Amino acid sequence: MFLDYASITPVDSKVEEEMRKVQKKFWANPSSLHTEGEEAKTLLEEARINIARVLRCRGSELFFTSGGTESLNIAILGVLKSQGQFFQGSPLKTLAPKGDPLILPHIIVGAIEHPAVLEPIKFLLKNKEVEVSFIYPDRSGRINPESIKKEIKENTILVIVQHANNEIGTIEPIQKISRIIKEFKQKNNFKYPYFLVDASQSALYEDVSLERLGADLLVLDGIKIYGPRGMGLLAVKHGVSISPIVFGGGQEGGLRSGTENVAGAVGLAKALEIAMKMREKESLRLTRLRDYSITKIIKEIPNASLNGGLENRLPNNINVCFGSGPRGLPLKDFAPKGSPQSNPLDSEFLVIKLDTLGFAVSAASACHTLSLENGSYVIESLGRSECASSSLRITLGRDSKKSDLDKFISALKKVIK
Amino acid sequence: MFLDYASITPVDSKVEEEMRKVQKKFWANPSSLHTEGEEAKTLLEEARINIARVLRCRGSELFFTSGGTESLNIAILGVLKSQGQFFQGSPLKTLAPKGDPLILPHIIVGAIEHPAVLEPIKFLLKNKEVEVSFIYPDRSGRINPESIKKEIKENTILVIVQHANNEIGTIEPIQKISRIIKEFKQKNNFKYPYFLVDASQSALYEDVSLERLGADLLVLDGIKIYGPRGMGLLAVKHGVSISPIVFGGGQEGGLRSGTENVAGAVGLAKALEIAMKMREKESLRLTRLRDYSITKIIKEIPNASLNGGLENRLPNNINVCFGSGPRGLPLKDFAPKGSPQSNPLDSEFLVIKLDTLGFAVSAASACHTLSLENGSYVIESLGRSECASSSLRITLGRDSKKSDLDKFISALKKVIK
Repeated sequence: MFLDYASITPVDSKVEEEMRKVQKKFWANPSSLHTEGEEAKTLLEEARINIARVLRCRGSELFFTSGGTESLNIAILGVLKSQGQFFQGSPLKTLAPKGDPLILPHIIVGAIEHPAVLEPIKFLLKNKEVEVSFIYPDRSGRINPESIKKEIKENTILVIVQHANNEIGTIEPIQKISRIIKEFKQKNNFKYPYFLVDASQSALYEDVSLERLGADLLVLDGIKIYGPRGMGLLAVKHGVSISPIVFGGGQEGGLRSGTENVAGAVGLAKALEIAMKMREKESLRLTRLRDYSITKIIKEIPNASLNGGLENRLPNNINVCFGSGPRGLPLKDFAPKGSPQSNPLDSEFLVIKLDTLGFAVSAASACHTLSLENGSYVIESLGRSECASSSLRITLGRDSKKSDLDKFISALKKVIK
Repeated sequence: MFLDYASITPVDSKVEEEMRKVQKKFWANPSSLHTEGEEAKTLLEEARINIARVLRCRGSELFFTSGGTESLNIAILGVLKSQGQFFQGSPLKTLAPKGDPLILPHIIVGAIEHPAVLEPIKFLLKNKEVEVSFIYPDRSGRINPESIKKEIKENTILVIVQHANNEIGTIEPIQKISRIIKEFKQKNNFKYPYFLVDASQSALYEDVSLERLGADLLVLDGIKIYGPRGMGLLAVKHGVSISPIVFGGGQEGGLRSGTENVAGAVGLAKALEIAMKMREKESLRLTRLRDYSITKIIKEIPNASLNGGLENRLPNNINVCFGSGPRGLPLKDFAPKGSPQSNPLDSEFLVIKLDTLGFAVSAASACHTLSLENGSYVIESLGRSECASSSLRITLGRDSKKSDLDKFISALKKVIK
């Protein structure tokens, strides 16, 4: 039983069918001048317009990429790259202490963002190209908009907050943050900071339109919305300065070179369209299922506690800490050499044990399975370091049913006992 | 009738079927710890091993990307990035004139490479991060290995030559160039230069194994080999220093973050396997068809001449210059304002005219359709500037038949008359 829908979703059968049709008939290169190329181009642009309708923006503000990671990297590295001249030629330069001609651009970023945000920022930090303020959430996982307000200054070029967290499902107060940024810009008549919102995890359950969220840059990923693999989206509002990070034939308005994946674009648009149609009903259904499961787990398993708040939480996210046992110690460090023993509440141990019983869940997120030795940095950031290595993420999807969850909780109780 | 297979190929039906099967059953995230994730991971690694067998290298030397453009950008920008310390700390530093502490890394690159090579290099040049030697081919399109030998020096870090050109199909003397580079490295006991070979265009018709070509870095693209869209490959020999250009979950050995496209990887392996099986027979068949067509076109159309040599040419490439008419002038500049008249031999005009008759061919390549105003830089580089804006690329594929080519040539004669 698959209960790891936050890591990936299957491709919707309607999306798959649509893509197959496109792939069969309209496989030409959309940059070609002939009819075959024009037809492919038309489909590509139709897909773009269909997505623009959902995101309530213009088609020319949308750029197809190979996934969420690439979208986020273009957004962060591309905005940084494009502003070089701005800060060098700006009045800010005169603010710098004498003999220090360089003011580094400043980024404000949530501490529990996805690695596809934190890693490019670490890279920029290492190269001394930016100054960064990491904003820690409260115990429920929420970022306080006021703590962002405090950090915004004249050289802030980018504020990055995810719409919903991938591990604990917390939905962040994006609209409030957006308002604060807009006020700062208006008051100072500044072009920056831009607001980058990663909506990869929220698009199935929330209205992720640029208009509603007030984002300057927005990221979506096909794999998270029952859509195609290797397809992501970056929305960039008109007027935002951004440079490409990869160079070539100049496709996607020069921001993302490489032959366009037409069937992928059509599939992404279809997946988003289906998600929009199902959103309200599915959100309600999964919220009920989620709350039923959380209540049951916490009631029936001693010391179990929820990571992240119950309010402002994605309908499909359950993340539970199982409390006792040696804390913060990964499996292999804890077990004596050559010994088969291990921490019975270690996240990885639980995942593997549940897997043998036929249940697929996750320790933290799939995106840093390899670096789990130190446990989840997200749960650590909540001030619950005792839970960082003894928690499970259970995420629901379109196939999840109450009877399944009952079976899962029974298995969980056996494993934890 | 599609005669533009160099711009893109359809997905082979066996590839499509294999991908569909994988997508249906093994859609989980290969970075997950559970059985579903492990199964996806196994398929991904099997695909990698299957490709390694064709390329005669190790699986750990292969990295899946979103296409040829991304692969080439990682290769160029990634090698540049990783060597920063090498040149800064190297004995070369002491060779620099006093007061000039910086020796720029030096790149040698063919002048008729694809935009996905030339554009990142232009970007580096603009930023003054490299010194570049552009190597021009002879009139047949061939790069003289000796001209590369002359340019290699102590700070050369990268030599880039495509296996076959995308516009005129010229197959370059990769093995000879590789030998020259190896000799230089051995003689001086140098780690650099690395040899980067773009084999995107040649993989259907040539043995593109790393071993045979003697490349340190090799690039393939799914769309050129009847394979999946949005899937490319970068081969990096063990020992080559290279840094990622995009950051995130650390997939693909940290070189290319982003959730892996498992079905895409399986499809790419399958496409390469099929290409290998068909290579010999299909090369022979298409070479005959190509030579038949070239002979007929040149015989029957006055002033027609072949761009690029007939020897060392991809079996599927025909590129013909139609000679007379105002040269080098793009359509819109040539026509008097408001006039429907135009250069009857302008490449774009010919493409569009042939398209109305049902034949899909290309003016230069699809990758710079938007910048065709100045004609083809490839044909220009051959010393045939009079042909840069009055040539057509006709590229054959698995569906191309002699009777089709006869029909095409009849249409061509009508259009040119």
